[in-house]
Amino acid sequence: MNFETITYSLEGNVATITLARPEKLNAFNTRMMAELLDVLDQTDRDDAVRAIILTGEGRAFCSGADLSGGPKTFEFSKGGEPERETTKVNGIYRDGGGRVTMRMFESLKPVIAAINGPAIGAGATIPLAADIRIASTTARFGFVFARRGIVPEAAASWFLTRHVGVQTALAWCLGGRTVEAEEALHRNLVFSLHEPDQLMMAARELALEIAEQAAPLSASLTRQMFWRLAAAEHPMAAHRADSRAIQMLGGTQDAREALAAFLEKRAPVFTGRVSSEMPNIWPEWSEPVFR
Amino acid sequence: MNFETITYSLEGNVATITLARPEKLNAFNTRMMAELLDVLDQTDRDDAVRAIILTGEGRAFCSGADLSGGPKTFEFSKGGEPERETTKVNGIYRDGGGRVTMRMFESLKPVIAAINGPAIGAGATIPLAADIRIASTTARFGFVFARRGIVPEAAASWFLTRHVGVQTALAWCLGGRTVEAEEALHRNLVFSLHEPDQLMMAARELALEIAEQAAPLSASLTRQMFWRLAAAEHPMAAHRADSRAIQMLGGTQDAREALAAFLEKRAPVFTGRVSSEMPNIWPEWSEPVFR
Amino acid sequence: MNFETITYSLEGNVATITLARPEKLNAFNTRMMAELLDVLDQTDRDDAVRAIILTGEGRAFCSGADLSGGPKTFEFSKGGEPERETTKVNGIYRDGGGRVTMRMFESLKPVIAAINGPAIGAGATIPLAADIRIASTTARFGFVFARRGIVPEAAASWFLTRHVGVQTALAWCLGGRTVEAEEALHRNLVFSLHEPDQLMMAARELALEIAEQAAPLSASLTRQMFWRLAAAEHPMAAHRADSRAIQMLGGTQDAREALAAFLEKRAPVFTGRVSSEMPNIWPEWSEPVFR
Repeated sequence: MNFETITYSLEGNVATITLARPEKLNAFNTRMMAELLDVLDQTDRDDAVRAIILTGEGRAFCSGADLSGGPKTFEFSKGGEPERETTKVNGIYRDGGGRVTMRMFESLKPVIAAINGPAIGAGATIPLAADIRIASTTARFGFVFARRGIVPEAAASWFLTRHVGVQTALAWCLGGRTVEAEEALHRNLVFSLHEPDQLMMAARELALEIAEQAAPLSASLTRQMFWRLAAAEHPMAAHRADSRAIQMLGGTQDAREALAAFLEKRAPVFTGRVSSEMPNIWPEWSEPVFR
Repeated sequence: MNFETITYSLEGNVATITLARPEKLNAFNTRMMAELLDVLDQTDRDDAVRAIILTGEGRAFCSGADLSGGPKTFEFSKGGEPERETTKVNGIYRDGGGRVTMRMFESLKPVIAAINGPAIGAGATIPLAADIRIASTTARFGFVFARRGIVPEAAASWFLTRHVGVQTALAWCLGGRTVEAEEALHRNLVFSLHEPDQLMMAARELALEIAEQAAPLSASLTRQMFWRLAAAEHPMAAHRADSRAIQMLGGTQDAREALAAFLEKRAPVFTGRVSSEMPNIWPEWSEPVFR
Repeated sequence: MNFETITYSLEGNVATITLARPEKLNAFNTRMMAELLDVLDQTDRDDAVRAIILTGEGRAFCSGADLSGGPKTFEFSKGGEPERETTKVNGIYRDGGGRVTMRMFESLKPVIAAINGPAIGAGATIPLAADIRIASTTARFGFVFARRGIVPEAAASWFLTRHVGVQTALAWCLGGRTVEAEEALHRNLVFSLHEPDQLMMAARELALEIAEQAAPLSASLTRQMFWRLAAAEHPMAAHRADSRAIQMLGGTQDAREALAAFLEKRAPVFTGRVSSEMPNIWPEWSEPVFR
């Protein structure tokens, strides 16, 4: 796919995905949705990618749904057909932001969102599925859905409540006021704040730590386990998964290399391939489908 | 129902429910339980109500179960019959505080608890089911259940652990010491603290933001989604619900009005009726019953 | 069992379990695992124990898996047989740290972890199943699993995400850097920080509050309810459990004594026996088994 709304680059083992419609404040549209789905397939397949940074070009991170369609932007045909055909899958309408966050949820590579400016609507909800969010002091968040006559999308009811609790999530989403960067930090929406010109350096530092220090299969399984098990009803589900994971990973070349490097006080050289060597620690897991 | 233990008022689109046994520090009894259940039916039915404030009259919010019955207050007859018959439903004893929090959980209207003073026992647990809790600097919380030989009620094991985490919930509930307003803020039990004479103004400001800025169906669905999905095992449940909600709300008059008002930089005029127009975005959901 | 890797003492109603391989920085091995399982059976059986403190001897809390086996520490035989036979149960490998945290999860007595120094690997994950964690200012945490080519164990994917959220859990576990005591406090991993020479006094104060103020059955049920229901999908599960608990506890001698003592402003004298009198408030609950 030729990207029109995003750019993609790979430097060392760190990929950067940049929302790139700066003249529209990186407004989200179905083309951007499709390109994000596509690029996440690419980062999954490419074993050179060990961590991903998601950011925006220009002064905004993402201003949300492109409202250039005017007051009918969220309208559907009388027959229940969405205007925006590309967000239908198997004949059923699926929220476009949610297609992106569901895909990020299943990413094999860790994702760090570097929120460089205003993040409004889908621009505020899509990075909720990143593993870590860091932000510029110029960032601000607008969970404006109720003010637009709709509801929070992109599975924000699951992701946002998990990050900041039901109380803060409702305080932000019922009224829809702007949330400044400082409040986003204080309420744990973002992990850290940075001066605008330091943000990408901080993101890169986090990404490099993962890319250089973590065995690739370990990082991939860790994020999969944490997301899948964060909401499990009982810790036994986690005990099963990590018992299997430790048994399966414990004998790999990378585990030997990791311990040897640690004991020899040198940097490890990992060779594990996430694209083909992910152990199946989830014999009981069936990924739910959309219906 | 003629209210004896609470008062009810409606100003503009903001309802205020006030616990009103100030001579008893608003102690909770079965009459108050019944009146709270009744008034929440009323706020659900009345489309003029777009937000609710719950507060207490006088210097306390609620001092908990009325202990004027003495040491046998929590006692049940040998046959397992509760002394307080009105808390039986279909022949089974149900905790009275829990009947209130289960009803608040299903409220169609957002609830803001304005905790104006001491909140002890059921007085500390009932506001856990509010969407947002704000408090006076004179508030304090007493999760005193283990000290009284019982356990936290009103489904606090679900609500409190969700708001403040298992560690803080246990630190407060195992020992039962008093939690001051500052600690309640710091640990995220309450969203903000206010000087005593500013509390109701702050509550009203929050309520008005919702009543004036949020489309009624949007606010009602948002709180329903956040509470129901906060504990879902997988974000796909949220993606399904919000895909449906956006499709169903996107074509409403209020969604068009919301976008038009935003693009025209004017205040919106919403006409959606929660009492009759709530879309069913939950074909798979069955509300669990008590048994 | 004669303890070799831990020590155990009981002072009044407070038990102290101390990891005691100070020459190895209390490194975790299968012997220590077995002794921890054993001592938690003992504290469950002994009605004199009303609260437990878990701490480490010397300058460390626990340095994690004993790596004296060198680079093959986490290795398993080709046939899938673990080198460390004692961590197999019914012929299936179970992570040793997870066996401890699953047992702590089911403890009948509240557990306070007093983290007196570095807590690395399993040393960082085992205390996640304590009810409350307090730490010395000299504590630090190393979630180093991905750096060792494995994944977080001891059901950390469930416990850690629950305590600090998915974002912080991943920020700590993907890269594996050291987390200082101040950050652990700030991110809610530990409830409070103390000067090294004040830590045990603070732990003892917390433990005594529970041992002296809480009715024994109340404390035991409260922790069981909070852990089991923290992740329930719907608060109705909590409403059912606490309705039963209040009915069953309300008529006990300890509930009468608690109210009488409160009304008479004197210290209560509790006689409830957790070993034999725990009410069954969970007719629907079946504890999941490992498989």
